[in-house]
Amino acid sequence: MFIKEILLASANPHKIEELEQILMPLGIALKSTRDFPDGEEVDEDQPSLEGNALKKARYWHQKTGLPSLSDDTGLEVDVLSGAPGVYSARYAGKNASYLQNTEKLLHEINGQNNRSAQFRTVIAFVEGKGREHLFEGICRGTIISEPRGDKGFGYDPVFVPNGYKQTFAELLSEEKNRISHRGRALQKFAEFLG
Amino acid sequence: MFIKEILLASANPHKIEELEQILMPLGIALKSTRDFPDGEEVDEDQPSLEGNALKKARYWHQKTGLPSLSDDTGLEVDVLSGAPGVYSARYAGKNASYLQNTEKLLHEINGQNNRSAQFRTVIAFVEGKGREHLFEGICRGTIISEPRGDKGFGYDPVFVPNGYKQTFAELLSEEKNRISHRGRALQKFAEFLG
Repeated sequence: MFIKEILLASANPHKIEELEQILMPLGIALKSTRDFPDGEEVDEDQPSLEGNALKKARYWHQKTGLPSLSDDTGLEVDVLSGAPGVYSARYAGKNASYLQNTEKLLHEINGQNNRSAQFRTVIAFVEGKGREHLFEGICRGTIISEPRGDKGFGYDPVFVPNGYKQTFAELLSEEKNRISHRGRALQKFAEFLG
Repeated sequence: MFIKEILLASANPHKIEELEQILMPLGIALKSTRDFPDGEEVDEDQPSLEGNALKKARYWHQKTGLPSLSDDTGLEVDVLSGAPGVYSARYAGKNASYLQNTEKLLHEINGQNNRSAQFRTVIAFVEGKGREHLFEGICRGTIISEPRGDKGFGYDPVFVPNGYKQTFAELLSEEKNRISHRGRALQKFAEFLG
């Protein structure tokens, strides 16, 4: 593989910076959707994280011709058979807030003894036509009843990763990146590139 | 990547031999489902070639711990919006014969001017937990009205690849492998390994 440039299908500055730190030592430049302002919003309407990540990466590869990377993340709760999963961002409705989604989740598992769950990230990397790669990162943990912490976003305030006492919203972002689902998927991607 | 052994999720001797020829020069040994007679039949019930190929490769990777390869192929006809596609093997019903499927196809496009189609193969390679790779091969061509040739299988007697006058069922298998959808997907996989 001789990759000189990768497109990240995101405009999120945190994601851009995180990926840049992986690519820089490898001599790979990073573009993002910010560099292509005429790009369209890709509808994340697929039934799986894999499907959404692939759909976005395929769109951007087709548009730019560059190897393109996209990711999708969901919270999968054991007693809910993996829900909210791919619907995590709209669990309480199409334009639901983080708080509304979290409240719905706490309501759904209210009274359950088993509060095990996992965050799962799928990275799709479309290298070229018909050369597609998926990297998965999983972080297992427990859903607590009372939100704690003000860092992060989404379900972070009620998710305590295994081996920790703090929620994701209480951990420093460096620590969270190191153990998180997304961090682990990115590590696999970095090994693939290296 | 340091791969010493790969499992092919198939018992088809032609597929085993074809893959062995790719792996041997790379010093990679090949196992097949024949080496694991207690393996179960994986239900190919997914809505896409990618889904079926991934499902089979994931099952076999989980069962054997080996990097596992699986493939799925469909005939995608332009005026039928890509049908029969993932349903190619059961287009005329669950236990339909090749002939019945082909007859149904000819009936569906009877009278159409546009008889363009493509065979598409997707190879899924599950290297390890959460490290999954997809390789696509496409061969475009035309559907003729009268079946010709007795080699190959499936829709081969009515498919004339672009640039040829013979159907897939009239070509020597070496020639077919060189230009076919499956051959092209395998070439991409070989480049990935190499």
